Amino acid sequence: MNNEKNSNNKNRIINPLRLKLHEVIFEAETKAGKTFDVILLWIIVFSIITVMLESVQEIESDYGNYLRIIEWTFTIIFTIEYFLRIISIGRGFRYIFSFMGIVDFLAIIPTYISFFIAGTQFFLVIRVIRLLRVFRIFKLTHFIGNAQIILEALKASFSKITVFLFAVLVLVTILGTSMYLIEGPENGFSNIPKSIYWSIVTLTTVGYGDITPKTFLGQALSSVIMITGYSIIAVPTGIVSVELNKTYKEHGISTQTCINCYSQNHDIDAKYCKYCGKKL
Amino acid sequence: MNNEKNSNNKNRIINPLRLKLHEVIFEAETKAGKTFDVILLWIIVFSIITVMLESVQEIESDYGNYLRIIEWTFTIIFTIEYFLRIISIGRGFRYIFSFMGIVDFLAIIPTYISFFIAGTQFFLVIRVIRLLRVFRIFKLTHFIGNAQIILEALKASFSKITVFLFAVLVLVTILGTSMYLIEGPENGFSNIPKSIYWSIVTLTTVGYGDITPKTFLGQALSSVIMITGYSIIAVPTGIVSVELNKTYKEHGISTQTCINCYSQNHDIDAKYCKYCGKKL
Amino acid sequence: MNNEKNSNNKNRIINPLRLKLHEVIFEAETKAGKTFDVILLWIIVFSIITVMLESVQEIESDYGNYLRIIEWTFTIIFTIEYFLRIISIGRGFRYIFSFMGIVDFLAIIPTYISFFIAGTQFFLVIRVIRLLRVFRIFKLTHFIGNAQIILEALKASFSKITVFLFAVLVLVTILGTSMYLIEGPENGFSNIPKSIYWSIVTLTTVGYGDITPKTFLGQALSSVIMITGYSIIAVPTGIVSVELNKTYKEHGISTQTCINCYSQNHDIDAKYCKYCGKKL
Amino acid sequence: MNNEKNSNNKNRIINPLRLKLHEVIFEAETKAGKTFDVILLWIIVFSIITVMLESVQEIESDYGNYLRIIEWTFTIIFTIEYFLRIISIGRGFRYIFSFMGIVDFLAIIPTYISFFIAGTQFFLVIRVIRLLRVFRIFKLTHFIGNAQIILEALKASFSKITVFLFAVLVLVTILGTSMYLIEGPENGFSNIPKSIYWSIVTLTTVGYGDITPKTFLGQALSSVIMITGYSIIAVPTGIVSVELNKTYKEHGISTQTCINCYSQNHDIDAKYCKYCGKKL
Repeated sequence: MNNEKNSNNKNRIINPLRLKLHEVIFEAETKAGKTFDVILLWIIVFSIITVMLESVQEIESDYGNYLRIIEWTFTIIFTIEYFLRIISIGRGFRYIFSFMGIVDFLAIIPTYISFFIAGTQFFLVIRVIRLLRVFRIFKLTHFIGNAQIILEALKASFSKITVFLFAVLVLVTILGTSMYLIEGPENGFSNIPKSIYWSIVTLTTVGYGDITPKTFLGQALSSVIMITGYSIIAVPTGIVSVELNKTYKEHGISTQTCINCYSQNHDIDAKYCKYCGKKL
Repeated sequence: MNNEKNSNNKNRIINPLRLKLHEVIFEAETKAGKTFDVILLWIIVFSIITVMLESVQEIESDYGNYLRIIEWTFTIIFTIEYFLRIISIGRGFRYIFSFMGIVDFLAIIPTYISFFIAGTQFFLVIRVIRLLRVFRIFKLTHFIGNAQIILEALKASFSKITVFLFAVLVLVTILGTSMYLIEGPENGFSNIPKSIYWSIVTLTTVGYGDITPKTFLGQALSSVIMITGYSIIAVPTGIVSVELNKTYKEHGISTQTCINCYSQNHDIDAKYCKYCGKKL
Repeated sequence: MNNEKNSNNKNRIINPLRLKLHEVIFEAETKAGKTFDVILLWIIVFSIITVMLESVQEIESDYGNYLRIIEWTFTIIFTIEYFLRIISIGRGFRYIFSFMGIVDFLAIIPTYISFFIAGTQFFLVIRVIRLLRVFRIFKLTHFIGNAQIILEALKASFSKITVFLFAVLVLVTILGTSMYLIEGPENGFSNIPKSIYWSIVTLTTVGYGDITPKTFLGQALSSVIMITGYSIIAVPTGIVSVELNKTYKEHGISTQTCINCYSQNHDIDAKYCKYCGKKL
Repeated sequence: MNNEKNSNNKNRIINPLRLKLHEVIFEAETKAGKTFDVILLWIIVFSIITVMLESVQEIESDYGNYLRIIEWTFTIIFTIEYFLRIISIGRGFRYIFSFMGIVDFLAIIPTYISFFIAGTQFFLVIRVIRLLRVFRIFKLTHFIGNAQIILEALKASFSKITVFLFAVLVLVTILGTSMYLIEGPENGFSNIPKSIYWSIVTLTTVGYGDITPKTFLGQALSSVIMITGYSIIAVPTGIVSVELNKTYKEHGISTQTCINCYSQNHDIDAKYCKYCGKKL
């Protein structure tokens, strides 16, 4: 989103109308741009509510026609907006194939398809992703900064959590099969995939209760699984905590810059640059 | 509460009775003030129990009249207390429109309204907020200090958790709709709002089991949601841990700087600089 | 347990038999003492299993008499052991009124009472507390050390968690009453105490599903409660993490002792004693 | 696995065919070895899916014969692979009695036993453990490193968590028996073991809802248990967090000591002492 904007800023043909349009649609700093964004977000919110209401049978049967009219109105607005976005950018293709461009496209197409195939309008809920633009109208940097810290920490924990989840999957397969053998189809553990589903429901402490152990041995094994889950739930938390702490520190302490080698990331108690030995 | 008291202390007309009243009602340091607070808290506790008992049909049908008499007695006591509070303060308006003043008012008004509209007495439960005054009679500073650390950490984590929760809401909307399309009304996922409710129940690991996936695809997607929830539950925990650690350190480590080597981060009980040995 | 032993060691009349008895029963360092402890623990385990089996109706109806004989045998063994413990100690009263002494007493008395009142034998489960003596036969110091770190951290977090739990209780009362007013008795929220019970079930993410919201407003409020619970579950975790980290550090780093003032608890990077300024 | 490979590398008779075989089967660095591993992993995945499908009655009744043929094919492949592994290693016994060797054996034997005893084929799910070899074909060291950090932290927290779990077991026994006495068999708490199972379900916040308290006292005690569980869930998380943090630091912070001021805790990328500026 940002990239295509910048590159377009450099290469665009100077066209005042398109320039104005670009400013209103893609930027949130000017008053017109901010107003456009706020209105757009509210329209998105209302269009999602419309889709949700359509799924409620009692409302659908009474007000179905009105809802469809509103939905079409919103879709036409979004379609116009979509084309304006393409036009306002010098090289429209970059927008079209960007992540948000694809989301914008998927957010209008289901209504047109629902013309031919019933029920597709529910895919319009993808519009909710467009709401992520909300961060643009609030204090951008502050929120983006926080989102970045979280994302960075998640990225850093990714490979550790992958290892952990893989081990959990192996564990869950063995536990699920054990429970299938212990409890059997007569107690709701009708097959191995379902028993694995039950293991996951139990290990994650969700515990629906749609399938529950009935035999003594099954309840004993379940107890072990639950206490295991209780203990290992700590692992991802620990990983993310540690990573968050790390990224936090990296973002929080690097105010000093070495005057000799311009390096950063010095500890708060460092007196000398750890890279070149110069006094800070 | 504290502010208005202080400002009144400065500007009040010297009136011995009002002074005494103010001391008893608003302060907890003197014996009379402490006794008043303890008695008040117990009355609040009993009044809340009365309201709760009124909601239990078996008790209501047998002892309803007694309960109503007790409730009226408590309300009258609180009403007198409310007016004494206003009188005892020089500028009563500041108390009336303070947070605790509004709570005190809302804690008596439902009984009077229940005269005209039945059922309003249950709003009396708001009295429970008045119990927060309990911290005044215990070692004030100690508890307030701890509450402050928690609140500060929560405030510091607020914007990060907001970003996180917004992302969770977007996720939950898409997951809920997917489950609505996969499972459909015949398996309990009767509409999109209900499916989103189910997603939240699952992702937060609450797992009521009032709605559960029945199809294979639904159970598979649920498993993914649960394991996701299991992993991302770590994020708020991590954020709060890090923030608590930070505020804790800030409260626990003195702001003293060594006059010799200008080092900081000295423990609160340190008398000498741990880096150069100079007296702090 | 430890205290009374030590004080007895000092004041006891030199009686070889009692001395031997004391060594066997109260100490785990000698072979006889360790054997005694291991046998005792297994007897406790079997006696608890006996009590549990007695509660299972199918087993009780078939083997009830055998179980009662076993139970009486165990109780008589424990009674003899109890009196030996009193005898082997110089000042028996200190043992009798110590925590473990009371537990030992409560662990035999229900069988005798069951002579007069049926069903009291289930209170024998209190014997499980006696199993805590298990730590004496394993590497005592290692486990006790770890238990101490956990306990210290829990104690340090106690007042903070108290503040937190009090706030949760106030929250839960208000939420429970709101749900009672929204859902009402017709949807299972039959009275305020039950609704508060439901709030706790939801906020702690237990989610039995015995009571679930049926109305749209109820499900919406529930979603808010769940996401709140999801976020605030982080607070006690954060508190305990921070405290554990602190006690851990205190236990982990204080190997250096100041040669001047014999103080400990120096940071790992300290060069000078922070209490007296002497070089470490 | 690694050990036996290394020792074999040293002592093997130079046999080009066996050498090649060894390289393909046991090593993942060469192209042939990697291809072998990737194919093997996919075969394992498909064989597990086959076993799972066999447990689904609708599929079994229609395609049972095909599934059995596929299963036999996979088992024969694994049997050949198993013998090739033994042959390719100089001292085959070390492989046979290694952990992975036993798993490999257990992963083929149930099919042969199912010839005589029906239903044993489900034990084939143990093949899922063989999938752990997946880490060999990805960037080995990176993942192993992360797995090692997690395992080290878990090992370090082991004795602390053992103490904690033992205390939880004692607690759960007492709570379960209390609930049995309060609620009784008429409310689903049919015996003490089942009540303990319920306590574990509640304390771990799983909350199936198959057994739920019906009496007021039972719901009150449950609320206490839940809030307790909510608070003590923090303990294992805290322990693991602290340990992870520690092992992380140990892996992240070099063991270098400054030769000038003997300070430690230098970052892994530090070239100069951050306290005195001396080159490390």
